Amino acid sequence: MAECWSLNTTSPTYSCNPGLSQLRHYILRTRSFSSANFFVAAQGRLVVFKEATCWVSSPPGLVLQRKKKNMTMGCSLGARASSSDSSSDASPCLLRPTVSVMVNGCTGKMGQAVAEAAIAAGLQLVPKCITGRGRAGGYAELSIQGIKVDAVDGDEREKVMDQVLQDYPDLIVVDYTLPAAVNGNAEFYCSRGLPFVMGTTGGDRNKLVKDVEASGVYAVIAPQMGKQVVAFQAAMELMAEQFPGAFAGYTLQVTESHQSSKVDTSGTAKAVISSFQKLGLPFNLDQIEMVRDPEEQVKRMGVPSEHLNGHAFHTYQLVSADGMVVFEFQHNVCGRSIYAQGTVDAVLFLAKKIREKADKKLYNMIDVLREGNMR
Amino acid sequence: MAECWSLNTTSPTYSCNPGLSQLRHYILRTRSFSSANFFVAAQGRLVVFKEATCWVSSPPGLVLQRKKKNMTMGCSLGARASSSDSSSDASPCLLRPTVSVMVNGCTGKMGQAVAEAAIAAGLQLVPKCITGRGRAGGYAELSIQGIKVDAVDGDEREKVMDQVLQDYPDLIVVDYTLPAAVNGNAEFYCSRGLPFVMGTTGGDRNKLVKDVEASGVYAVIAPQMGKQVVAFQAAMELMAEQFPGAFAGYTLQVTESHQSSKVDTSGTAKAVISSFQKLGLPFNLDQIEMVRDPEEQVKRMGVPSEHLNGHAFHTYQLVSADGMVVFEFQHNVCGRSIYAQGTVDAVLFLAKKIREKADKKLYNMIDVLREGNMR
Repeated sequence: MAECWSLNTTSPTYSCNPGLSQLRHYILRTRSFSSANFFVAAQGRLVVFKEATCWVSSPPGLVLQRKKKNMTMGCSLGARASSSDSSSDASPCLLRPTVSVMVNGCTGKMGQAVAEAAIAAGLQLVPKCITGRGRAGGYAELSIQGIKVDAVDGDEREKVMDQVLQDYPDLIVVDYTLPAAVNGNAEFYCSRGLPFVMGTTGGDRNKLVKDVEASGVYAVIAPQMGKQVVAFQAAMELMAEQFPGAFAGYTLQVTESHQSSKVDTSGTAKAVISSFQKLGLPFNLDQIEMVRDPEEQVKRMGVPSEHLNGHAFHTYQLVSADGMVVFEFQHNVCGRSIYAQGTVDAVLFLAKKIREKADKKLYNMIDVLREGNMR
Repeated sequence: MAECWSLNTTSPTYSCNPGLSQLRHYILRTRSFSSANFFVAAQGRLVVFKEATCWVSSPPGLVLQRKKKNMTMGCSLGARASSSDSSSDASPCLLRPTVSVMVNGCTGKMGQAVAEAAIAAGLQLVPKCITGRGRAGGYAELSIQGIKVDAVDGDEREKVMDQVLQDYPDLIVVDYTLPAAVNGNAEFYCSRGLPFVMGTTGGDRNKLVKDVEASGVYAVIAPQMGKQVVAFQAAMELMAEQFPGAFAGYTLQVTESHQSSKVDTSGTAKAVISSFQKLGLPFNLDQIEMVRDPEEQVKRMGVPSEHLNGHAFHTYQLVSADGMVVFEFQHNVCGRSIYAQGTVDAVLFLAKKIREKADKKLYNMIDVLREGNMR
């Protein structure tokens, strides 16, 4: 499976020390490297770098550090050469393995958005996805960013997975299917030992958690994949835990707008309100103002008209007793990109935990957030 | 010094058990008691309560819990009586000693706001305040909420403090004077062993902290007394610490509006931005948009025109790379009440720490916030 790119660079290209033999297929990326300067290690060979700077890995931490000047190393892709670089700054950068992702439900809009975001992030999309029973026929022409994806009938999933695992033994599954499929799919992933990110909501969540725990597979399960929304929600909870009653005497007003088909109110709003209650703000959930009228959504909430059918806008206003102090917090989401990006982060996170052989197996988006920026 | 009020209530009024003899002078307040139902314990007598409910203290935690039905207790202010209440809910409430406060600088607007807020919160205002040298003459008629306050010349402060301490041995000083007076005043408070809340900004802050630490007096020192603003600022820092890089790829825009006389930008904005930087948002402080034009403040920022000369409005906008996600955080303050209320909370906090004989002596507003609602 290993691929090897040698990108255009004027620098000499070095191989790495033999300690990297456990590495299979890595892409190197740092903020300081432009995307034109991606580099790759393959089959135990670390390939390097940018201009005259040489970076080598220091296993097992997968952190690269720039080597001191005037070293000479074996060359993997070019002729033997010695580095003449003598500058001394050496910020470490992460070495990341390529991750293979199978997106079940990429026949749907959310799954497709995840598949596209995964490809854009440099992940390898497995060109198969499992659909509901008897439903594969409708997706003969499925293509994502030029990658033709076979939609496979759910009845054939065991056989197909045998085949997929031969080509992608370390794959991670992403599930954006249907609430009714959540538990059945999870049971299947668990029975096959497949690590997975469950982005589908609904189903029996307690059973889901129990099945995963019993199986010992690595999984991220989260009802809300919008990483930054989860971070905001957690920040409000942290504030409430640390400073209980800090907003005593204030009043709270909550307004949310979602596509008119959404009947119930937002789970995120409920979670944030529960933090505000601990901060001393009296509030009942039935006081949430739910805006569902498209005209009001555009004029009052500022929803772009092209996103009337897919948005999640929230405004929390906290006003002091004398009206002299107003806090306002908004999180306004259009479309699916935030959830797709968060899902890709969850996949990268899970890949890291598997690599590290972490003891903990079951995670949520807070765990993903604590890990820091995954890209 | 102990005063004793028996407020109008139809309930029997009970004294408390002898375990309270160490209590001198307390005011009881809970959210569930209206302000007409304040009650007081004096000289070891706990005086109670509301309707037919009897609350007694359980030292040493200063937490009141409702006694079970049919108890009989000695009566301090009325005839002996027994409670017939049989309802069983018993939310605890706090028992708080009356605190005496001397507000130096209550000749100024901020000091006056604090003195008023202190009185409104049931604290006892010491009817003296120390002014700058040679400046007392201008305040012969100083009166705060009907309490005539003597403004005393700074040259006489030693003599005046001897006298004040006789009447209010446990007083706490609040300082809202001038930057040039910060260090001199703090030295004076330290030399007299006076606990204090330093609300005045400026001066040599390192020296201030060193003087307090050397003296061992209890003090709250904070450049920002707006408790809820500090809580928000801390929440953003907590988010940054726990979820570094969570907003990587987002862009930040910061707009603040203050009275046109404020030349520099806001310290709060700088602190919040430093958290956002850790969250992965690139930003230089010179990118802060400072709005100082009154017309723009009213029309664009929504500042009420009567507060053009005293407001602090801040808007932080975080936008995802694809523009599909927008977070907006605002804290908009008019006038001085938030700072006055925060200062009163700091005084109550300090009184509690003194009562508890806390080892730690020097505090900031984060410490005050961690203590929970002080009222």
